[in-house]
Amino acid sequence: MRTRSWQMDRFQERKWTSVEDEIAEEYPLTVIVNEKEFATMVCTPLDMEVLVTGFLASEGIIRRVNEIKQLEVDENRGFAYVETTTKLPPAHSGQKRWLGSCCGTSRAFYFQSDAMTARTVMDETIFSPDLCYRRMEEFQTDADMFQRTGGVHQAAIACKKGILKAYTDIGRHNALDKLYGYLLKENISRKGKMILFTGRISSEVLLKISKMGVGILLSKSAPTDLALELADDLNMTAVGFLRGKRMNVYTHSRRIAVTKEE
Amino acid sequence: MRTRSWQMDRFQERKWTSVEDEIAEEYPLTVIVNEKEFATMVCTPLDMEVLVTGFLASEGIIRRVNEIKQLEVDENRGFAYVETTTKLPPAHSGQKRWLGSCCGTSRAFYFQSDAMTARTVMDETIFSPDLCYRRMEEFQTDADMFQRTGGVHQAAIACKKGILKAYTDIGRHNALDKLYGYLLKENISRKGKMILFTGRISSEVLLKISKMGVGILLSKSAPTDLALELADDLNMTAVGFLRGKRMNVYTHSRRIAVTKEE
Repeated sequence: MRTRSWQMDRFQERKWTSVEDEIAEEYPLTVIVNEKEFATMVCTPLDMEVLVTGFLASEGIIRRVNEIKQLEVDENRGFAYVETTTKLPPAHSGQKRWLGSCCGTSRAFYFQSDAMTARTVMDETIFSPDLCYRRMEEFQTDADMFQRTGGVHQAAIACKKGILKAYTDIGRHNALDKLYGYLLKENISRKGKMILFTGRISSEVLLKISKMGVGILLSKSAPTDLALELADDLNMTAVGFLRGKRMNVYTHSRRIAVTKEE
Repeated sequence: MRTRSWQMDRFQERKWTSVEDEIAEEYPLTVIVNEKEFATMVCTPLDMEVLVTGFLASEGIIRRVNEIKQLEVDENRGFAYVETTTKLPPAHSGQKRWLGSCCGTSRAFYFQSDAMTARTVMDETIFSPDLCYRRMEEFQTDADMFQRTGGVHQAAIACKKGILKAYTDIGRHNALDKLYGYLLKENISRKGKMILFTGRISSEVLLKISKMGVGILLSKSAPTDLALELADDLNMTAVGFLRGKRMNVYTHSRRIAVTKEE
């Protein structure tokens, strides 16, 4: 976590005191793809290579890490220069609104690029409720610390043995993009994995996880209806309000069951 | 608040029960400006006219509400059609990264359009700490209810007498854009006003409030360093971690003081 100290005035018990506080850093990073300005995001300036990799995959610009020929981050100026073997879609056409032929479930996808890159999840690994509780507890122990200091988000990938990798960012989508970049870069198998996330399950969050190809998402927050429609379509298990020894399984609950092996 | 019921499986005390849950609606809205697709946002489908108005003002497309000649929302298909007297910037050039001549404080602005539309706040109204606590308490009573049901965000405008207007949205920026749209549409004076907000004080949040022209922002969450740099530059009072009878005043604390009149 990157922080900076800031002198502020605290008012408490009817008295002012001058206090030095630790503030989460927010850093603008402009991504240049094949010599064109692609996007500017604000992020926590840590793990920026995996962030850019995951972001480009989320946006459908790359599908595999070897489609990136070069990636250089200029930390002083806040620029990432990327060369890909793929072409950028002509001026944001990839973000055009996608409308299916009927206005029912097809509304669930709202961008063409998502409709092309979101995948139906094939992994059918089953996890016990106790294992879900344990992973969330381990995850929360770390996450709570970060949330106290700066209100940042955290995303992690875990398997039956424990948490494999966790990322932190002031942007919730960035935390997931860092995770996606890591999975691509290290070529981690998605089988038998679950994602833990501190934030709400929105459609965008769900689509990112479907692109990663992981079947189970555990969150302590609430989902939206559009996210659940997508989870249902894409064969993903969406778990919300996982707090203590209780959870809500909104879709494809067969992946959560008491198994013999544990 | 718009919700939809969803049949889910709750696991609690080692038992599964099938429960009908209320889920926050998430609705994709595509904004067409002067016959061109401008953006697609996901929002809570309430108060969409003020949302679109505030969003266009935040993006620097309009400055006054009379620059909108027509605004029609097609709720069934999720499109907003807007005609403005202003011209759209040529293909996203308004979003080009802005770099000052030195890399110190000038980094605080990262988009050209923000550097052009963010305003130094002139209002010097002073509020007492007790008044800040009271407004936040009234605000939180409403906000907590919404947060329990669906993890949504809320933004409100208040004065010394009470809360004038509050908006809710699953997107934190949308809640602020709805408020901005309301201020423009109703031509509300910004003098003697404060903004209450459930979310974190990021640079984007701070810039939106500076564009609205309100001098004080009260939040129960944490700020980022970039947001505080901007608040400092733009003469805004940024208050975070306002919880119970305690608050952190990060910038321009002179606007919070015990006054005779209260």
